[in-house]
Amino acid sequence: MCAARSILLMSSSRLHGSNYLEHARGQLEELFRAKNVKTVLFVPYALPDHDKYTQLVRDALQPWGFKVEGLHTKPNHSLALTQAQAIFVGGGNTFVLLSKLYELQLIDLIRQLVLERGITYVGSSAGTNVATRSIHTTNDMPVAQPPTFDALNLVPFNINPHYLDAELNSQHKGETRDERLAEFVAYHKLPVLGLREGTSLSVQGDCAKLLGCRNAKLFKA
Amino acid sequence: MCAARSILLMSSSRLHGSNYLEHARGQLEELFRAKNVKTVLFVPYALPDHDKYTQLVRDALQPWGFKVEGLHTKPNHSLALTQAQAIFVGGGNTFVLLSKLYELQLIDLIRQLVLERGITYVGSSAGTNVATRSIHTTNDMPVAQPPTFDALNLVPFNINPHYLDAELNSQHKGETRDERLAEFVAYHKLPVLGLREGTSLSVQGDCAKLLGCRNAKLFKA
Repeated sequence: MCAARSILLMSSSRLHGSNYLEHARGQLEELFRAKNVKTVLFVPYALPDHDKYTQLVRDALQPWGFKVEGLHTKPNHSLALTQAQAIFVGGGNTFVLLSKLYELQLIDLIRQLVLERGITYVGSSAGTNVATRSIHTTNDMPVAQPPTFDALNLVPFNINPHYLDAELNSQHKGETRDERLAEFVAYHKLPVLGLREGTSLSVQGDCAKLLGCRNAKLFKA
Repeated sequence: MCAARSILLMSSSRLHGSNYLEHARGQLEELFRAKNVKTVLFVPYALPDHDKYTQLVRDALQPWGFKVEGLHTKPNHSLALTQAQAIFVGGGNTFVLLSKLYELQLIDLIRQLVLERGITYVGSSAGTNVATRSIHTTNDMPVAQPPTFDALNLVPFNINPHYLDAELNSQHKGETRDERLAEFVAYHKLPVLGLREGTSLSVQGDCAKLLGCRNAKLFKA
């Protein structure tokens, strides 16, 4: 039971044919307005250029009426998070992102703020991966090594963002996404939700709801 | 300088339209005959069913005149490796494979046998990843967590197996392989060789040679 929880986990920040975050505008507006969010604290660590990344998010959200600040510009990260109305953790490399959150010792704090204080959490792609129980089901290349693959555990299961079905006519012999997720399920005996691009998982309190116009795929033992 | 080294690193064990290992038959026969290898010790840990995996390799290599034994069937792994004429490390999940090699404490022994005693090493896919300096450039899902991403370091650089060019007309918004490898290069400032399916890197002593009918792609800072 977690009555305070208010989370939106996007598969991706972009959808083919639309601008950055545009496909999720309705989802974000509804969430932020319900929680009276005026300013979003952006966590840019999954990509190398934090200023540029924060500006990208600002350019998307500001016209919709939301102010965006970069966590990396704050002298005291913990204080900034504690005072935030909403946290948005952007995509990029999941291993780099989780490593940085551990390095800055922000994991326990963010978990506590979201689960106990009800601070709104929005994630996309890598930001969705780190919100789940672990990053074992990321698609990213392991360019950095975090101390553990355990993540924020804001939801007690795994998500595979950018989930896509196997191409039937592919001549490539690398594993398909389904084969990779089956490896995870066989190894951990735990479920994982394949979240297609353009869709999001909204979790308000203990009620989870799939948003967007495509279905998701649940893999379990 | 490493005069003893005799290594064949395959991008993949399968190529579209041909049977398991068939595309590399000439490469394997030439290598094994040059080194008078009659029996190959197979390391099956990258896939869950070790017996079945070893039989797959046996079915491929035996008709060509090479006996195959599974490392997992040996009561003393270190002794079996020390007495081996050639080691073949098969593909599957790179994280699972490297975790198992660390768990069995075989990393230092295999490195020593290959670099100092000249035991022939053959790897494909995950078996190629673990032969390089680290597994930071695997395509696999991180379903297991090894104590470190550092690997056998039989060659002092990284390889990306199953390398493939970006699909120009893709509507998928997940990163392309080139974007992922650029992330690695930006993070580590180290080179990585993208090895296309159907090709292999042969390293005899200090001489490396690309085998197969396609070129490779080198990414560097």
